[in-house]
Amino acid sequence: VQDLVARVLKGEVRAAARACRLVDDRGPGFRALLKEIYPNTRAAFWIGITGSPGAGKSTLVAAMVKHFRAAGKRVAVVAIDPSSPFSGGAILGDRVRMQQHFEDPEVFIRSLATRGALGGLSRSAVDVARVLSAWGAEVVLLETVGVGQDEFDVVFAAETSVVVLTPGMGDSVQAMKAGILECADVFALNKADLAGADRTAADLEQALALGGALNAWVPAIVRCVATQNQGIDALLAQIEQHRIWQLSSAVGRQARSERVKRNLLTHLRHEVVERALLQHAEFLSVLASAVEAGILDPYNASERLLATLLE
Amino acid sequence: VQDLVARVLKGEVRAAARACRLVDDRGPGFRALLKEIYPNTRAAFWIGITGSPGAGKSTLVAAMVKHFRAAGKRVAVVAIDPSSPFSGGAILGDRVRMQQHFEDPEVFIRSLATRGALGGLSRSAVDVARVLSAWGAEVVLLETVGVGQDEFDVVFAAETSVVVLTPGMGDSVQAMKAGILECADVFALNKADLAGADRTAADLEQALALGGALNAWVPAIVRCVATQNQGIDALLAQIEQHRIWQLSSAVGRQARSERVKRNLLTHLRHEVVERALLQHAEFLSVLASAVEAGILDPYNASERLLATLLE
Repeated sequence: VQDLVARVLKGEVRAAARACRLVDDRGPGFRALLKEIYPNTRAAFWIGITGSPGAGKSTLVAAMVKHFRAAGKRVAVVAIDPSSPFSGGAILGDRVRMQQHFEDPEVFIRSLATRGALGGLSRSAVDVARVLSAWGAEVVLLETVGVGQDEFDVVFAAETSVVVLTPGMGDSVQAMKAGILECADVFALNKADLAGADRTAADLEQALALGGALNAWVPAIVRCVATQNQGIDALLAQIEQHRIWQLSSAVGRQARSERVKRNLLTHLRHEVVERALLQHAEFLSVLASAVEAGILDPYNASERLLATLLE
Repeated sequence: VQDLVARVLKGEVRAAARACRLVDDRGPGFRALLKEIYPNTRAAFWIGITGSPGAGKSTLVAAMVKHFRAAGKRVAVVAIDPSSPFSGGAILGDRVRMQQHFEDPEVFIRSLATRGALGGLSRSAVDVARVLSAWGAEVVLLETVGVGQDEFDVVFAAETSVVVLTPGMGDSVQAMKAGILECADVFALNKADLAGADRTAADLEQALALGGALNAWVPAIVRCVATQNQGIDALLAQIEQHRIWQLSSAVGRQARSERVKRNLLTHLRHEVVERALLQHAEFLSVLASAVEAGILDPYNASERLLATLLE
C-alpha cells in the first residue's frame, strides 16, 4: 500500500487505476490507503453534476472537461449514472463524443456500478474521488442521476453542485419539490435552444424566489446547449463564483461547515453498515432471524448490534 | 405513553394520529412507544408502491384502497411522495378523487414531508407504518416516488412491492438499470390503454428474462387503468400470490429473511445518525471543524464519533 500511495501521489495513471479498484472493492489495505492519501486530496475542486436521465449531463460534463483541459487542468470524472456514456451505458453517439477524453492521459474517467439497495455507492464514489484528487486531478466532476439518498450524498460531497434541467421537463417542478432545490448551487438549463426554455427558467426562478429567504446563496440559472458548446463559459464562471463565495464570505464558510458535518454523518452511516456486514455478519443473521421469528423487536436488535460493533 | 399505546391498540383514530406525530417528531417517549407496540404490528400486510412522478401511483393506491375496503379490511396509507395528493402536493382533481377515503374512518392516511439530505424519512415512514399496524390496519400501503436510497429503504420494508410504470415512459429502461428491477415483486403497467403499452411490456419482459436466473420470483406485469378501476383485481391477486410465495416456499422464506436483515441494517444506519445528531451534536461540530481545517481526516473523525456514540 505504501508503494501504491507513493505512485498515486507521483501522478501515475496505472497506480491511480489500481488504487481506485482497491477502494471500490474494499480490498486489503484500502482504509490505510485512504487515510494515507487524504492530506493530498484537499487541493482538488469537486463539482457535482446531477439531473434526470436525458437531461444531457454527460454531454455537459464532456464540454466542461474540454474547457478545463483547454485551461491546462488535470481532470477526473467519477460517474455513477447508469445512463451515462462515462459508465458505458449510453448510446453509441454519446460514447463517440466522449472518446477524445478517454484517450487524454490528463483526464481520468472512472465509472461505478450501482450497488443495489444497501447503498455504499456514494461512499465508493467519494473514496474514488479522493484517490483521483491525490493522483493530481485539479478538478473532479462527480456525475450522478436523480435525487435519491445516494445522489444527495455524492452531491453534498462536492463543493459546488450543478443541477441540469431541460426545457419542458414535465417533472422539473416535481423534482424541485423532492429536494433538488436544496442541493443546487448552479442550475444548468441545458438544451436551451428548445421550445419551453423561457417557461422552465421562469418556473425555476419563481421556486427560487420562494425559497430564497432561507438560503444566503441564490443559484443562478445558466442556459446551455452542451452539444454545441454554448453557455459552458458562463456555467464555469458561476461555479467559480460559488466557490469563491464559500471561501470568502461568512455565510459561505458557514454553508461549507454544514456540508462537512453532513459528509461526516454520511461517512459514519456507511462505516457502521460496512462493519456490521464485514465483521459481524453472523451475529447480524442471528438477530435478523430473531426479529423474523418475533422473539426480538428491531429496536432492541439494532441496539445490540450497535453495542457489538464497538466491543 | 402507556395510555397512548393502550388507546392505539384499541383502534382509536385520534390516539393513532397522536402516536404518528410523536414518532414522526421523535418526541419524548417515541422509542418506548415503538417497542411497546411492536408485538402488535406483525399481523398487518405492508405493500410498497413506487414509480416515477406522473405514473399514477396515487390513483392506483386509491383504487387499491377501494378494493380492500370492499373486502372489509382496515387500511392505512403512508405517502412520502411529494407529488401525491395523499401528501397534499397534487392538483385539485386528484385530491377530490381521494376525498372518499379521507372521510372513511377505517382508512388512515398519513403523509410525510421529505427531510432533505440527511435522510431519516424512510425511518419515519416505517415507524409510522408500525403505529398504524398496531392501530389495526390490516393492509398498509407505502407510497413513495423514485428509486433513491430512501425509497429503496421504504420499499424493502414492505413485504411486497409494486413498481408502477406507464407506456412509453422514456426512462423506464433507465430506471430498471438503476435498480428498480431489484425491488419489484409486481409491475403495474398503468395507463395501459395508452399507445406503447405493448412495447413497454415487451421491454420489461426482456429485462426480466435477463435478470430472471438470479431471482427465484419472476414479477408479473399487470396492466391497469387505475382511473377506470381496471386491472386492480389482477394486481391484488399477484400481490397475494407473492405474499403466499414468501411464506410457503423455501426460496420465498429465504428472500424474506434477506429483507429482514436488510431492514435491520437500515435501522442501524438511521439509529447511528440520530444518536450523533441528538446526543453528540457538539462533538460532531468539533470533529467537522477539525476535518475542515485539515487537522483530522474524515476516516479517523468517523471512528472517534462512533466510539463516542457507545460510551
